[in-house]
Amino acid sequence: MSDWTVIEGGVTAPRGYRASGITAGLKASGLPDLALIVSDVDAIAAGVFTTSQVRAACVDYCRQQLQAKPSAKAILCNSGQANAATGAAGWTDAVESAQALAKVLNIAPESILLASTGVIGQRIKMDILKAGIPKLVEELSENGNAAVSKAIMTTDLVPKTIALETMFADRPVRVGGICKGSGMIHPNMATMLAFVTCDAVVSPTLWQEMLTRATNRSFNQVTVDGDTSTNDCLIALANGASRTPAITGMGPEAEKLEGMLTAVCEYLAKAIARDGEGATCLIEVQVSGAEDEASASKVAKTIVGSSLVKSAIFGHDPNWGRIAAAAGRAGVHFDQNDLEIKLGDFVLMQQGQPLAFDRNAANEYLKRAKTGEYLRKDTVLISVKIGNGSGVGKAWGCDLSYDYVKINAEYTT
Amino acid sequence: MSDWTVIEGGVTAPRGYRASGITAGLKASGLPDLALIVSDVDAIAAGVFTTSQVRAACVDYCRQQLQAKPSAKAILCNSGQANAATGAAGWTDAVESAQALAKVLNIAPESILLASTGVIGQRIKMDILKAGIPKLVEELSENGNAAVSKAIMTTDLVPKTIALETMFADRPVRVGGICKGSGMIHPNMATMLAFVTCDAVVSPTLWQEMLTRATNRSFNQVTVDGDTSTNDCLIALANGASRTPAITGMGPEAEKLEGMLTAVCEYLAKAIARDGEGATCLIEVQVSGAEDEASASKVAKTIVGSSLVKSAIFGHDPNWGRIAAAAGRAGVHFDQNDLEIKLGDFVLMQQGQPLAFDRNAANEYLKRAKTGEYLRKDTVLISVKIGNGSGVGKAWGCDLSYDYVKINAEYTT
Repeated sequence: MSDWTVIEGGVTAPRGYRASGITAGLKASGLPDLALIVSDVDAIAAGVFTTSQVRAACVDYCRQQLQAKPSAKAILCNSGQANAATGAAGWTDAVESAQALAKVLNIAPESILLASTGVIGQRIKMDILKAGIPKLVEELSENGNAAVSKAIMTTDLVPKTIALETMFADRPVRVGGICKGSGMIHPNMATMLAFVTCDAVVSPTLWQEMLTRATNRSFNQVTVDGDTSTNDCLIALANGASRTPAITGMGPEAEKLEGMLTAVCEYLAKAIARDGEGATCLIEVQVSGAEDEASASKVAKTIVGSSLVKSAIFGHDPNWGRIAAAAGRAGVHFDQNDLEIKLGDFVLMQQGQPLAFDRNAANEYLKRAKTGEYLRKDTVLISVKIGNGSGVGKAWGCDLSYDYVKINAEYTT
Repeated sequence: MSDWTVIEGGVTAPRGYRASGITAGLKASGLPDLALIVSDVDAIAAGVFTTSQVRAACVDYCRQQLQAKPSAKAILCNSGQANAATGAAGWTDAVESAQALAKVLNIAPESILLASTGVIGQRIKMDILKAGIPKLVEELSENGNAAVSKAIMTTDLVPKTIALETMFADRPVRVGGICKGSGMIHPNMATMLAFVTCDAVVSPTLWQEMLTRATNRSFNQVTVDGDTSTNDCLIALANGASRTPAITGMGPEAEKLEGMLTAVCEYLAKAIARDGEGATCLIEVQVSGAEDEASASKVAKTIVGSSLVKSAIFGHDPNWGRIAAAAGRAGVHFDQNDLEIKLGDFVLMQQGQPLAFDRNAANEYLKRAKTGEYLRKDTVLISVKIGNGSGVGKAWGCDLSYDYVKINAEYTT
């Protein structure tokens, strides 16, 4: 992280972006429910989307738009109705949403990307959405990050936003991001909803490649409950407003930009896990000694997704047996006699066999990691070594608490 | 089920088997913890075992024995210590357990198969096990099913046992089974522990093939919490004591025998799901319209394993959106516009779109399915059609309740 610094402003930190969020009335709760991000000029656009066979209309819409032309000027997001499993009518609603916004922004509908989140099977309340658009556009502002990051939330407890800045020669380049997500989190190619802005000058192909790699190391490595959403969507814009030299192939600048993009995605992905439904802590699993990164990442994600590991951590139980069992079922070959497991600094298992450890101290470690603050520095860290290979990988999740069951048993989401 | 009838006696129902279960003192609780099944004559033996990279010594031991010779006379099971992740010492304990029993039974150690369950990482208390063996052998009885089925339990609330009988010409053939399992249930090639006895005369190759197919349609289609165990093991003996004609290839008798074996395995697998940690009901998911059985089974198992579907059913919420989302992420291709979802007799979704349904009545259906009785007839039935193919598949699981979290957060298992 020494190559860049954290700055304020989220998605409006990069030059040439404005954002807004309002309460249009799509949600019964009266909370903000309509969000907009606009780039002053056409921006290169890349996206990754849910791999689910059951998808929201906006996911198919964005895929189609980006296939035709990898650029966009605006992202419109409603957090009232998911518009998933709504058939042809849902598709028409998506098209009409873009048209309505295009008219007010006075741009082509093809320059608009769409995202939705909310209850599956509910169509967008189109009258309310259309009525809200003029106000949404009116409120567009370079200071709109707080509003836009709140207006995309559903069961999230907190908005999730970050921005980073680096220097390319003597000119600053910035990457900003916001996201939402708390339940139905087990992304596969994308997460719930995340929007990234950037003012670098970069080629579309390279920008998409960078985004895919960044996603594989961030959003695709986080799980709250193992359920992939119908509306997963990550869109990243790069509008060139930094006027730095164009990046068209890999090199020091490209590596720096990709590093910054990955850091933004990782920060947002971890923020989702921290805000997981019912979560009392963030769990990070680091796996090393694998044959390659993919194998290490697979083992890490399997451990962090295990209900038994998650319940043990909720109960402050340094239960290494469950960690070993989860590693063993990940579908990655290793010799169980090479297995090493650490919880924080406590070595619980080495060469496949349990070690004596101070159970009370390990218990205290787990308790300390849960101070109840949001974005606290304390995280439950599980380190697992499965062999002598060079492959390393990380994954993030949260514990499984009574509140997860309560949230998902008592309310329709 | 019209080709056979349910009879008493479990694993001792087939001729030529005796069983026993005692409290040897391996468990701190003082509950029964040592179990034995013996066939009077050498029986054909087949087995399926956990695919986890982290395995109990007994799993490796049985695999090695069955590879050398597909027959056995006795199965010894301890439910005190898992003897998993115990390295070379654990292996020595397994070998010595077989030798100790062989001496008392006066048979070759190679005729003995082993199973363990309990806390991972704990070695078997060998002194206690060895001291218990004479009493265990002394108590062997044709009426030993109640004792043996209790002595293999850990967090199970109830013993799980079944026996079926059919006629081959004028002679009865019987298949009996017992199993244990309640948490860490997401078998892949086997379940926690299950033992099946049979008195048919069948060739070893065919018996293993039948067992593998039966497992794929039963134990491999049940999940409680998505966690595959280190000790999963299903052993099936066929001792030929029925003296019916030898079955060496597929035909009417073989089909009948396989049907009966599958029915025993399915009954036991459902019993595990019903007794899932914290469960208040059994959930059965039936998938049709898939390209093949494997695709249908995969979709069914994904739905029944979804934490969101499980929590919704715990909360009596007919949340078809979560069922659709789980189907969509199963990794099986289908057109979402073909999707049909039923809950009991309520059609919730057709042609990929939600239907109006009586929410209160559906809610009542979910409440009725939970009478709190064990092995009640009431089951939450979810039927999903994903296309027009001929592939059908079923899977079983249970709901996700506060008690699941409580059981797994408050105790080391």
